[in-house]
This record gives sequence, structure tokens and C-alpha cells, in this order.
Amino acid sequence: MEFPSKLIENAVGELAKLPGIGRKTALRLTLHLLKAETEATSSLAEALAKMRFEITYCQTCHNISDTEECSICANKLRDHSMVCVVSDIRDVIAIENTGQYKGVYHVLGGVISPIEGIGPSDLHIDTLLTRIPESEIKEIILAISPTMEGDTTAFFLSRKLREFPDVHISTIARGIPMGGELEYADEITLGRSIVERTRQAK
Amino acid sequence: MEFPSKLIENAVGELAKLPGIGRKTALRLTLHLLKAETEATSSLAEALAKMRFEITYCQTCHNISDTEECSICANKLRDHSMVCVVSDIRDVIAIENTGQYKGVYHVLGGVISPIEGIGPSDLHIDTLLTRIPESEIKEIILAISPTMEGDTTAFFLSRKLREFPDVHISTIARGIPMGGELEYADEITLGRSIVERTRQAK
Ligand SMILES: [Zn+2]
Ligand SMILES: [Zn+2]
Repeated sequence: MEFPSKLIENAVGELAKLPGIGRKTALRLTLHLLKAETEATSSLAEALAKMRFEITYCQTCHNISDTEECSICANKLRDHSMVCVVSDIRDVIAIENTGQYKGVYHVLGGVISPIEGIGPSDLHIDTLLTRIPESEIKEIILAISPTMEGDTTAFFLSRKLREFPDVHISTIARGIPMGGELEYADEITLGRSIVERTRQAK
Repeated sequence: MEFPSKLIENAVGELAKLPGIGRKTALRLTLHLLKAETEATSSLAEALAKMRFEITYCQTCHNISDTEECSICANKLRDHSMVCVVSDIRDVIAIENTGQYKGVYHVLGGVISPIEGIGPSDLHIDTLLTRIPESEIKEIILAISPTMEGDTTAFFLSRKLREFPDVHISTIARGIPMGGELEYADEITLGRSIVERTRQAK
């Protein structure tokens, strides 16, 4: 596809770098912005840049946050003795949307993936281990997508967590189809899988 | 969907304003940018803002252009006696991609739509009419999508063009399915519809 303008070409090229956006869709979006008020484009560009450059992470759970402590960790009404371990911020949003969970979170920032060169030290596992005694945590729910990498990560964590024999370890109930991504589950299934979580044998 | 950060919420909200982008897709794009290098976001934001604020239009044909005259109008090898009238820049790109057309263009900037309050005076029709005698145009191809609004626009133009009895008026061949949008046509169909254009009876 050739464009009559380098400006258009650059905009289309940048949009088409986003996952799931092809060049035809990118052109459609570009021409939409071109027809709309200039304000629409400046708001979008500013929101993206601001998000990327000003974002911070909660020092306790590594959730995204506009402050040092995220709104979930800061909420005294939540059960701080129960920590739900997830790989990704998306999973926090998905579980929060079920309205079924009242504990707190720990965001690993990924899963162990030898292919992508992601090892345990690349994930927020150390902060989880130091957090357990400091915060008197009684239960840890491993809510990691049951993919191959997810299962590897959960297995690795289970073994690490053996140093805390008083902490109950559970995994979300297998309402989630095997090989399925957590974030695609409907809210009812995901909600149930939290409520009916299965406690792990030690 | 609730977000743990206003910055994320704004970015998702702005992306979700784009046509065909839902909130779930917007969140996916936002988290993709968050994981990627900061440079990816700044390049995207800058490309969009630059495109929107620096874009200019060809003074002859109203095609998008980085200069006063677009690369098609400036090309001496093209047949300047043949003008293809289209509603949109997308149509110029689509026809150029067929490689079948060697004339020049005139971009109306829309179609007559009483529902959306777009009348003939909102389109670049006047500049087309002044262009015909000035540029010694011999043929005008009406390449407007055969939708109801497109047909209305083509009919309006046909009548206006009666003041130039020496100019041949043709419409693109009905290879395009009725009610179909020009830009969705495959290149072969669109290319043929240009080559086999039907000359209008006066
Ligand atoms: Zn937190
Ligand atoms: Zn031009």
C-alpha cells in the first residue's frame, strides 16, 4: 500500500505495529483521526504518552498504580492475609471485575518461559517471599493461567512456598478450560474458580 | 471495567473512542505499550500528532499531501486530461494500488448526505468545475461508491457537468457489488471497473 504522504505513512506504520492492527485497519484509524477534530488526536497522543511515561507500580504488589501504594493494598477493608498471585495486571482487572475476591494481590509480571528467556529471577517472586512473613499472610491463591508456562510457574512457586508451612496454598478451581487464558474467561466462571479454589496438598 | 490507575483509564478511554476498538482491545493495546520500550509509545504518539497537525491537502485535487501539490498532480507522466472523482482519500489509495489508472484525481471529501447534513456546498465540487476549463480536462470518471448517498452525489455531479458538453463523463463499471464500499473491493475487481468504465449517455 502506497501513501501520498509521509505523515500518513508514519502514522499508519506506527499503528500497524500494535498487536492485532493490520495496515488496512491502521489506515482506517488514521483517516478517522484526520476527519475528526484535531483535539481527538492530541487527547489520544497525550493520554498514551502520559500513561507510558508517568505510570508507576505499587511497591507492595507490583500492580499498576498512580501512587506508591495501589488502591487495593491501601484498602483496609480488604483481607490482607490472603494474597492472590497473578502473572499480569490484566488478571487483576479480570478478577476485580468478578467482584468475588476481597483479598489482595501479587503481580509476578509474567510467567517462567525458557523460550522467551524469562527465568524466575525476572519475576517478582523475591518480594512475594519477603512479603509473607512481614504481612502475616495466611493464604496464597495461585491464579495463574493453566498454560504450560503458567503451570511451570505455579509448580516453581509451590516448591518455594514450602518454606512457609503455615501458609495455605490454593489454586483457582479448574473452571477455567485447560490451556485457556485467564483474562478470556467469562466473569461467572472466573468468579466461581476463585470461590471454589482448591487447596493444594503439601 | 475498573482500572487501578487513572493513567491507564485515560489511555484505554481514548483508544476505545477509535472506530472498531472496544474497551477490551483498548486495554490490550495499552498493556502492550506498557510492556514495550517507552520509545514505542513516544513514536506512536508523535506520529499521530504530527500527522494530524502538519497534514496539508493538495490545492488542485484535495488529496492528502506533504506539499502544496500532491505527488500525483505533480507527476508529468500522468494523463492530466483525465480526472477520477472520488469521495475519499481512501479511494485514491485503493485505485492507486490497482496500478490500472494513469490519470489524476479529484477528492470530493465526502458524499451528499441529507441525514448527516452534508450538502453539495460541503464538498469540493466548485473547485472541480473551475478546474475543468483551466486544465483542459477531456474525461471525468465518477468513481463513487454505489451506495444511496454515492448515487445521489454522482447524479448531482452528472447534472452539473452538463455545462461542459465536450467533456466525456464515465462511471466505473459495475464490477463493484451494489451497495458495496469501494475500498473493500479486491484489486482486480476495482482495477477492471476502472478499465471497463462505462461512458454516460448525455
Ligand atoms: Zn498494591
Ligand atoms: Zn493533487
